[in-house]
Amino acid sequence: MDIGSRFDAPEFAALRERAARVRLLTCDVDGVLTDGRIYFNDEGIESRAFHASDGLGIKLLLRAGIEVAWITGSHAAAIEHRAKMLGVKHIIRDALDKITPWRMLRQELGFDAQSCAHIGDDLPDLPLLAASGLAVTVPNAPSTLRAAAHYVTETAGGLGAVRELCDLIFVAQNIDFDATMEKSA
Amino acid sequence: MDIGSRFDAPEFAALRERAARVRLLTCDVDGVLTDGRIYFNDEGIESRAFHASDGLGIKLLLRAGIEVAWITGSHAAAIEHRAKMLGVKHIIRDALDKITPWRMLRQELGFDAQSCAHIGDDLPDLPLLAASGLAVTVPNAPSTLRAAAHYVTETAGGLGAVRELCDLIFVAQNIDFDATMEKSA
Amino acid sequence: MDIGSRFDAPEFAALRERAARVRLLTCDVDGVLTDGRIYFNDEGIESRAFHASDGLGIKLLLRAGIEVAWITGSHAAAIEHRAKMLGVKHIIRDALDKITPWRMLRQELGFDAQSCAHIGDDLPDLPLLAASGLAVTVPNAPSTLRAAAHYVTETAGGLGAVRELCDLIFVAQNIDFDATMEKSA
Amino acid sequence: MDIGSRFDAPEFAALRERAARVRLLTCDVDGVLTDGRIYFNDEGIESRAFHASDGLGIKLLLRAGIEVAWITGSHAAAIEHRAKMLGVKHIIRDALDKITPWRMLRQELGFDAQSCAHIGDDLPDLPLLAASGLAVTVPNAPSTLRAAAHYVTETAGGLGAVRELCDLIFVAQNIDFDATMEKSA
Repeated sequence: MDIGSRFDAPEFAALRERAARVRLLTCDVDGVLTDGRIYFNDEGIESRAFHASDGLGIKLLLRAGIEVAWITGSHAAAIEHRAKMLGVKHIIRDALDKITPWRMLRQELGFDAQSCAHIGDDLPDLPLLAASGLAVTVPNAPSTLRAAAHYVTETAGGLGAVRELCDLIFVAQNIDFDATMEKSA
Repeated sequence: MDIGSRFDAPEFAALRERAARVRLLTCDVDGVLTDGRIYFNDEGIESRAFHASDGLGIKLLLRAGIEVAWITGSHAAAIEHRAKMLGVKHIIRDALDKITPWRMLRQELGFDAQSCAHIGDDLPDLPLLAASGLAVTVPNAPSTLRAAAHYVTETAGGLGAVRELCDLIFVAQNIDFDATMEKSA
Repeated sequence: MDIGSRFDAPEFAALRERAARVRLLTCDVDGVLTDGRIYFNDEGIESRAFHASDGLGIKLLLRAGIEVAWITGSHAAAIEHRAKMLGVKHIIRDALDKITPWRMLRQELGFDAQSCAHIGDDLPDLPLLAASGLAVTVPNAPSTLRAAAHYVTETAGGLGAVRELCDLIFVAQNIDFDATMEKSA
Repeated sequence: MDIGSRFDAPEFAALRERAARVRLLTCDVDGVLTDGRIYFNDEGIESRAFHASDGLGIKLLLRAGIEVAWITGSHAAAIEHRAKMLGVKHIIRDALDKITPWRMLRQELGFDAQSCAHIGDDLPDLPLLAASGLAVTVPNAPSTLRAAAHYVTETAGGLGAVRELCDLIFVAQNIDFDATMEKSA
């Protein structure tokens, strides 16, 4: 199945080259897998809104054999609920410093930094953007983040930004959707 | 009552012809009846936001004798709660493959594929778009979906896209609103 | 306090005349006091999002002695919770037909139709728009509604559309904000 | 770390001067720290959506030794939950009149009005905007508010407006992000 991607265009050649090497995708949560909103109710329970199209992208990525990890400064249990539903096994919460757990995860999985992609939207993500082979951020990120990224998504965080990155990886690695979808069924 | 529809315009003649044959409308849920956001709270409970104007459109469609079914890959109970409130009796959840249950439903109800409309927003909907007499998607769907659809709604998913499709069917089938609204009261 | 309103402009003279007569404001709920989204969780509990600026407008209207009523086809208890918090005493739920309870309320309060304003966004509101001295709808309402209204708000439903209508009434009736705010404190 | 701010531009010189004096930031809640939506469920429980980027801005401000207080007309417990999570100690709820508790807080902390910044979006915030050394509001505030403010944020309330104000203060006071982030870790 042709996903008909804009990433096929010649201008994305260098980006596709970076994406072709990706074996591990790490994602920030608030502002990336969500639109940054954290809902509090009067009983102190938090909610977050994840997007269905990010979910399908991540599931297909996992089926294609690419590792996915979420690294967040938050402690919220909702994040773990969503991750488990998608089959994401590596969830690092309470990460005020993100680079140390990221290095440990890379060593555990045996990937060098050039095989890693990171998508993040705020200052704590800067060290990971600087270190990763493919560094991605979202349109409303601070300018320092956008300057440090190889690519800024067209889609806003929480509305499919991660899916856009998944599509780039699918195109760059010639991953066949029909086959992966059957495996996922 | 004249619903004053843009679908009266000559450019929509071929589309109205397709819509005139519709006896069964099948709807994807996430991204179509919702804007794709899935809310998770810290206790693992999911929420989804359905739109009131879609709800009225579906109720009027049912009153006019057109069948409505929802087909979703999700398992969420919230979907069943909303469907029941609107009087939608056919709810197919956990449908990773959508074409098999769709064929079974068609046979059960006795409709051929030309009498069916489907609205969906992501890759699992492609087979249904290809098979249905009227294939509809939403503006932010992947390009493959938009290429496969007879019509892309102006309204985004979750904000009235399904109502827009209902309006097309009302116009194409000359359904009188006042009469159906009285029956619905 | 000058609320610095655009409704001071000459083009709004006829509209101000209608607004000057308003003694009773009736509001549809879904799509007007909310953006039309109805949140369902997996336990079947519904939520709706009301806007703080509508809330302040309604509280000031009540302090200025103008009656406010909500008329909705919905049964949801959340609507009653929000209405009570704002001091709105007239809440008509489950109103599939809105004109009969509206007439009863008018008689109970002793207002003629020219003293009434209604704001609504969908087909069940049409009879009230046709009957009310000041008929208002929101930008994304069906074209029949917009054709029937004396004014279409600039602000979308659920984001302050009702407050915009309150501001029109304040300007038309020369209501002094400082005084009403002190009374409301 | 250079936060690469637009507030470095010469046109913001007078604004930076005001921001350089800020020792206390007071924030309205609904419409400023949220987008104004108040979610009610059928059990009467309220929710509000705070933004992660505002949260990081406030935490860094506190680490840099600047006091932060929230002043709101609301009674909602959710506000206290979010404030505590960020380390905001001064929370004034049920404040229909905001100027009296603001003066008491200033005296308690020993700051004059010129050392105070306030960000608010509706009529009850006007007295604080008039009194504060740095008065800020959001794009969709009433025109009276915008006229009274020294600065109107580019970002909407609830989507990072408070973070934008934090960034202005960081630039004006030459606060070093790396250092404050390490202290916050």
